[in-house]
Amino acid sequence: MTQRIPIVENILSANDQMAQKNLEIFDHAGVFAINIMASPGAGKTTFIIKTLEALQRRLRMGVIEGDLATSIDAEKAAAAGLPAVQINTGGECHLDAVMIARAIPSLPLTELDLVIVENVGNLVCPANFKIGTHINILIASTPEGDDKPYKYPGMYRGIQALIINKIDLLPYVSFDMDYFRRGVEVLNPGVVTFPLSAKTGEGMDAWADWLVNIVKSRKPAEA
Amino acid sequence: MTQRIPIVENILSANDQMAQKNLEIFDHAGVFAINIMASPGAGKTTFIIKTLEALQRRLRMGVIEGDLATSIDAEKAAAAGLPAVQINTGGECHLDAVMIARAIPSLPLTELDLVIVENVGNLVCPANFKIGTHINILIASTPEGDDKPYKYPGMYRGIQALIINKIDLLPYVSFDMDYFRRGVEVLNPGVVTFPLSAKTGEGMDAWADWLVNIVKSRKPAEA
Repeated sequence: MTQRIPIVENILSANDQMAQKNLEIFDHAGVFAINIMASPGAGKTTFIIKTLEALQRRLRMGVIEGDLATSIDAEKAAAAGLPAVQINTGGECHLDAVMIARAIPSLPLTELDLVIVENVGNLVCPANFKIGTHINILIASTPEGDDKPYKYPGMYRGIQALIINKIDLLPYVSFDMDYFRRGVEVLNPGVVTFPLSAKTGEGMDAWADWLVNIVKSRKPAEA
Repeated sequence: MTQRIPIVENILSANDQMAQKNLEIFDHAGVFAINIMASPGAGKTTFIIKTLEALQRRLRMGVIEGDLATSIDAEKAAAAGLPAVQINTGGECHLDAVMIARAIPSLPLTELDLVIVENVGNLVCPANFKIGTHINILIASTPEGDDKPYKYPGMYRGIQALIINKIDLLPYVSFDMDYFRRGVEVLNPGVVTFPLSAKTGEGMDAWADWLVNIVKSRKPAEA
């Protein structure tokens, strides 16, 4: 009789356990955490900076930036005067729960309401690794094309909110919004969707209000 | 004394061996093979279709399409009347040499001059897996932003030609060509670069001529 050695399963399960721990740490500190995923160049960093600007009087925020090698993104967040931690994955194609666990102690959690995690730019791998945030958010962008839900289904299945960024480019690119939304609907029926342009600011209010609402609804009412 | 077990090294080396075999099969058939990599939505499929159109009277071509799940891309190539094979990776984030070895028998190699492989849309993982083509080509696109060489260095290091696609969108996006090119130059000095728009056709001739030239220069002169 040969013995079955389910290595992949164990690795994922160890990651999931660590993700659960991270979530407990965020919960204990009263912090809501979101994981932002996207293709390279969908506009994650600009979107996050604009979100920080929109919410700076309404929420206390911190940022965890994931990149292969540089600290460009964390520097941009820090320039906005916010606590920011950079994770350099050393070439790894996704963030995992261990990386987040190591980053958390560098943030003043008890002084924060919201932590935004920017994952590595990749429309495949990050979907397979929980990191311990409360929700997953995907940023699609119009120049990427309207067929991405059909071609990268795993990413669209595991999210709780979808941003459609760069709507200011709609006149210049081939992007059939109906075709795109039909693909999303099959994979993730009813997922809340925010078409917007982080660059021009159009549509950012609806997103910011939704986020504030979800963060505040989880907090005990202030006396 | 503990024993060192270099598992990752062995996996890569098995893949490299298979890649070498694929290359020998292409060489034996007199076929030049290129591996096209890019972010999701950089325009790989449109670029390939336009390349096929531009070269249809000059080269005999076939296509291997890599996708997570669908056969959308292979159908587009087949619609252009060319031999096309679809590899569905089943969620894997890159093509590997074994997948290519399995796809090769579906192409009429001895009747072809050029095989174009479209890798999975991913700016990280495909760079780590040789598949057995003669050259690697990266398609960057202007809406992705000018910082991608700095943030995804591995991909820019391992290529022999760089396409800068969607130059028709330059008036509408923030893309500093000099900053982009400086980043590329550090990672891959002197790499041949083709700024173009697969959509409008601008710049496609220079790329097509370069490709024909490289393919023909490797063939024995016809008697």
